[in-house]
Amino acid sequence: MRKSLPIFITSLILSYFPNVACAESSNLNQKVAIDLSQKALQSDLAYKITESLTVEVGPRLAGSPENAVAVAWAEAKLTSLGFDKVYKEPVVVPVWQRGEASAKVISPYPQNLVLTALGGSVATPKEGLTAKIARFDTLDALKHASKKNVAGKIVFIDQKTERFKTGAGYGKSVAGRVNGAIEAAKLGAVAIVIRSIGTDHDRLAHTGMMHYDDKVAKIPAAALSNPDADLLNAMLTRTDDVTLQLTLTPKSQGTTATYNVIGEFTGASKPDEIVLLGAHLDSWDEGTGAIDDASGVAIVTAAAKLIGELPQRPARTIRVVLFAAEEIGMIGGKAYVERHKDEMAKHYIAAESDFGADRIYRADLKVAASVFNEAQALLTSLTAIGVELGDNNARGGSEVSLLPAQGVPVASLRQNGQDYFDYHHTPNDTLDKVDPAALAQNVAVYAQFAYLMAQSELVLRPLK
Amino acid sequence: MRKSLPIFITSLILSYFPNVACAESSNLNQKVAIDLSQKALQSDLAYKITESLTVEVGPRLAGSPENAVAVAWAEAKLTSLGFDKVYKEPVVVPVWQRGEASAKVISPYPQNLVLTALGGSVATPKEGLTAKIARFDTLDALKHASKKNVAGKIVFIDQKTERFKTGAGYGKSVAGRVNGAIEAAKLGAVAIVIRSIGTDHDRLAHTGMMHYDDKVAKIPAAALSNPDADLLNAMLTRTDDVTLQLTLTPKSQGTTATYNVIGEFTGASKPDEIVLLGAHLDSWDEGTGAIDDASGVAIVTAAAKLIGELPQRPARTIRVVLFAAEEIGMIGGKAYVERHKDEMAKHYIAAESDFGADRIYRADLKVAASVFNEAQALLTSLTAIGVELGDNNARGGSEVSLLPAQGVPVASLRQNGQDYFDYHHTPNDTLDKVDPAALAQNVAVYAQFAYLMAQSELVLRPLK
Repeated sequence: MRKSLPIFITSLILSYFPNVACAESSNLNQKVAIDLSQKALQSDLAYKITESLTVEVGPRLAGSPENAVAVAWAEAKLTSLGFDKVYKEPVVVPVWQRGEASAKVISPYPQNLVLTALGGSVATPKEGLTAKIARFDTLDALKHASKKNVAGKIVFIDQKTERFKTGAGYGKSVAGRVNGAIEAAKLGAVAIVIRSIGTDHDRLAHTGMMHYDDKVAKIPAAALSNPDADLLNAMLTRTDDVTLQLTLTPKSQGTTATYNVIGEFTGASKPDEIVLLGAHLDSWDEGTGAIDDASGVAIVTAAAKLIGELPQRPARTIRVVLFAAEEIGMIGGKAYVERHKDEMAKHYIAAESDFGADRIYRADLKVAASVFNEAQALLTSLTAIGVELGDNNARGGSEVSLLPAQGVPVASLRQNGQDYFDYHHTPNDTLDKVDPAALAQNVAVYAQFAYLMAQSELVLRPLK
Repeated sequence: MRKSLPIFITSLILSYFPNVACAESSNLNQKVAIDLSQKALQSDLAYKITESLTVEVGPRLAGSPENAVAVAWAEAKLTSLGFDKVYKEPVVVPVWQRGEASAKVISPYPQNLVLTALGGSVATPKEGLTAKIARFDTLDALKHASKKNVAGKIVFIDQKTERFKTGAGYGKSVAGRVNGAIEAAKLGAVAIVIRSIGTDHDRLAHTGMMHYDDKVAKIPAAALSNPDADLLNAMLTRTDDVTLQLTLTPKSQGTTATYNVIGEFTGASKPDEIVLLGAHLDSWDEGTGAIDDASGVAIVTAAAKLIGELPQRPARTIRVVLFAAEEIGMIGGKAYVERHKDEMAKHYIAAESDFGADRIYRADLKVAASVFNEAQALLTSLTAIGVELGDNNARGGSEVSLLPAQGVPVASLRQNGQDYFDYHHTPNDTLDKVDPAALAQNVAVYAQFAYLMAQSELVLRPLK
């Protein structure tokens, strides 16, 4: 039964293309795509790449010495895998070092709390700062607070992040992390702590970027683990009068250069046209960046490698871009767009893997409405490995979401994000969270997608 | 239907006791027990107690200032709940402070590792120590190693702890934690790190007591989190030559006094005979000691309180003992046995809750073989809330396991330990791990057990 399945699927898919010359090449493309899928599902290459990056490099915060090791690792890895071209493009990034984070309830119930600095936060005074807590359900509630309830206090935004397959809970709660320090400082707060933007119950805090406004005082910002937010909340149900001592010692140290690392398998007949597969090479500094985003790096690299191993290169070039500095503001993505402005018209389509290592359940596109049905039909073989064909409203994800504004068609190959925010941006983002079989399914999807798009005869533009 | 259930169960149980005068009091006892069970299942008292101890006191390592707060909390709590007697008995304990723990792979793949000192460990030199890793699958493998492979190195025992409902995996792996430092030092190791004795995949290390032998050098001992043990292992599959820098700064600071805290509801007709319900008041220092053992404290306290609320006290005294210093060697339990030596003959039966907050699935006894069947029959009402009646080989658990050697009958009211070792002895032992409904089921079991034993006419001795 196992051996006959590909043949069955091939027949099924070929039935979508019953006519004419065009159908013949489509049939062949579909057959190659299904072969790629089978190979991907049987390969541990992506898992090996994920393991290599997490074990041999580990945490690789943009601008850190470890990130430079990651860049060297990426060049060496793409080269050793036989990419036709491997090169890197410089990106200037700020250097921010986490330092230490500690917090202690001073009264009425002395206890240490587990927390971590948010990315970009300023430090507290060296000896820490001590103030009462002012709790808010949400960023919005804080915005509507009065100065007299906030001034001189440490703001605590206590919003829980809900669990969804789509990851939609993150979008609902992350504003408190990003803009909380600005709103709290406007009302005279001396610092802000937020409930971690995460769906877990682990005593590990979720970091992530926060913003300042140059017109507003910059106050220290940190995230409490969910159990610690529960604890603080339980204290606040007993008394309004909870005093916290907070010490954060991050440092901002100017800027440095890092790199987008790029590998290509050159197209056979349209080498200047690009199917871009993206992921980001940097990670936060506390985990080993396994699901964010070593797995993405591994998925797109392994998918391209499988295509590179075919006896015949597809028409278009497959370009893998391992972006720099996603976590600290998609700096590598912006640099890529700037540097490749003149080449944007040659980007046939792009997709990025940056949502963990769980299975892909749906494929959305953003292409010219007139060809959406045909473009989607090209991807029919994905349905055999659990991927539903979605709509034409893809945004592309992470750096690739910058490309539609440049006229570039994109796909969103959506992963199940049910558990993603249990580990995201925590020390718990480690290799054991990656299921090799789920990872291989991702490779199978990306390999098919990239190959079929590299061979497609459709004109995917204009987007509007 | 809901309201008629108790009546149905009562009828069912009463059918076990069809005859004579004895049956009449048995019937009444069963009815009271079932009422207690119903009240327990509808009460949030145990959850409130667990919350109170974890929020208002939190971590309470034996010998620490926080432990003194816990003793005061316990006296106040038992008093406020209306126990007839509340008193404390001094226990001398060593004072050990954790300090900081850090570890870094120096070569070939520089990365920080997450670990924690084992309880009782000596410190490394202040600047840390740096040595190569010598890995062993188990403590037994270490015992069979040669000096030349170990001398001057940091031993790494990499044994995984298996997940079982009974918690049996712990017994299989814990010897490496307890005796690893002795065996490693015999072979000239400079330190030991073990894979945490835990079933989770969280980046949180499991502490717990370790031992030294005064005839063998005392070397620093720590536990790596499971993902960090995986990481170190993955490095060691790439090269034998992995160098670790380890810094631990624990301190031993002599001894101090702490207390067993005891509360009693005095028996109506046999007040000098005791049904002992135990739990331990101390906890490890990194979590808030929710499942180890605030939940146990809460279960036995709430069970006794429910009995204390009855219009009529049972025959025997219900004694709740909140033991000191369980975690660091059952010191409170040993002190209790010593202090109450002359009273041991008056301990009718004892049980202890110290295995988390999940449901009880089985009740075992250790009583005179001649009365086992009758004693077990007394507990038939437990089956209505999911408790299987087990065998006569109970050991009693934790401190109460010291009592059969004193001739005291015991019960093991076995909790589902499937998830217990995910959190045990880690920062992750927090209130959110406690399910209020499961906790209430525990109270229902302990309340029935304690009441039925306090009223029992059986002679449970001698044990052999």
